[in-house]
Amino acid sequence: MNFLEEKILQDGVVKPGNVLKVDSFLNHQIDVALIDEIAREFKRRFAGKPVTKVLTIETSGIAIACAVAREFGVPMVFAKKSKSVNLDGEMYVAEIESYTHKKVNRVVVAKKYISPEDHVLIVDDFLANGCALQGLISIVDSAEAEVEGLGIAIEKGFQEGGYRIRNLGYHLESIAIVDSMDAETGKIIFREQI
Amino acid sequence: MNFLEEKILQDGVVKPGNVLKVDSFLNHQIDVALIDEIAREFKRRFAGKPVTKVLTIETSGIAIACAVAREFGVPMVFAKKSKSVNLDGEMYVAEIESYTHKKVNRVVVAKKYISPEDHVLIVDDFLANGCALQGLISIVDSAEAEVEGLGIAIEKGFQEGGYRIRNLGYHLESIAIVDSMDAETGKIIFREQI
Repeated sequence: MNFLEEKILQDGVVKPGNVLKVDSFLNHQIDVALIDEIAREFKRRFAGKPVTKVLTIETSGIAIACAVAREFGVPMVFAKKSKSVNLDGEMYVAEIESYTHKKVNRVVVAKKYISPEDHVLIVDDFLANGCALQGLISIVDSAEAEVEGLGIAIEKGFQEGGYRIRNLGYHLESIAIVDSMDAETGKIIFREQI
Repeated sequence: MNFLEEKILQDGVVKPGNVLKVDSFLNHQIDVALIDEIAREFKRRFAGKPVTKVLTIETSGIAIACAVAREFGVPMVFAKKSKSVNLDGEMYVAEIESYTHKKVNRVVVAKKYISPEDHVLIVDDFLANGCALQGLISIVDSAEAEVEGLGIAIEKGFQEGGYRIRNLGYHLESIAIVDSMDAETGKIIFREQI
């Protein structure tokens, strides 16, 4: 069992509806030492990749993405939620369906911050149905840049996002993969990783 | 002239309507080394304060607040924008008027993450009219915790927020204070700080 799986067992709370609450250390209160350990783990798992930029999406990916960018010594960019209908042509745009809030968000990245020369590591805190990651991949594609990999803290292995993105041929690494969880007993089962 | 003022002169862009765009290094693309330098400067300016928690507000305060929390070796908490009308009584709530978007946001912090024993350092990227900071102060007050200080990257010195918060007796530190800026010439004048 790795450090993040141990932390999830210790401080995570399983709620009905397949919700895993980790807001005591990952997405409301943030345990910075844990975030740094996650970042070092991604540096190890994506060692040798010529990463020039780390990309995430607001809000809860920002803390991890900053720590990962520090490890690689590159800038971090976060896609912003945008309500503007009139975008000025200087933005890459993706439409992302939110699993939690059941609505579609438009996210944007200014074109000047991802260029065809960039090798991008995409980072986020959670992976469930994969819509956020697919939106970020489409932004990197629009920029004609390279996706070097995708690093996720917690993957819900019982939803199809991870399966779908690995099937597309991307190098996806999740530090903890939850294969099942039970709100009544609080039991969480992680997928074994080598 | 300090490191942040130099960076603003080099990469910031003045737009009509007193807008200072710093999205190439502070709030869209993030220069992590600069963020870390900002954090060390706050550690110096708030040296000796018994900080137990760093508090900010989503989105663009998160990167800086994480770096500051790392310097102090304490957790970071960010207030979340909430559209829920039914809050379950486990949240501190503040209403914050956004200067940029001309609307009122409700932000919340789970009560369990700020307690009366906490000594809170409030951090944000920008200070203009001070509404966001006053909302965060009111949350700390609701928790009966102590505000040890407020650390801001860029203060718009020509708006009343900084004046108002210093007058309330708080220890407010802004690394760069813009006293005036001109969209036509691009000229930016900083307030002298000792």
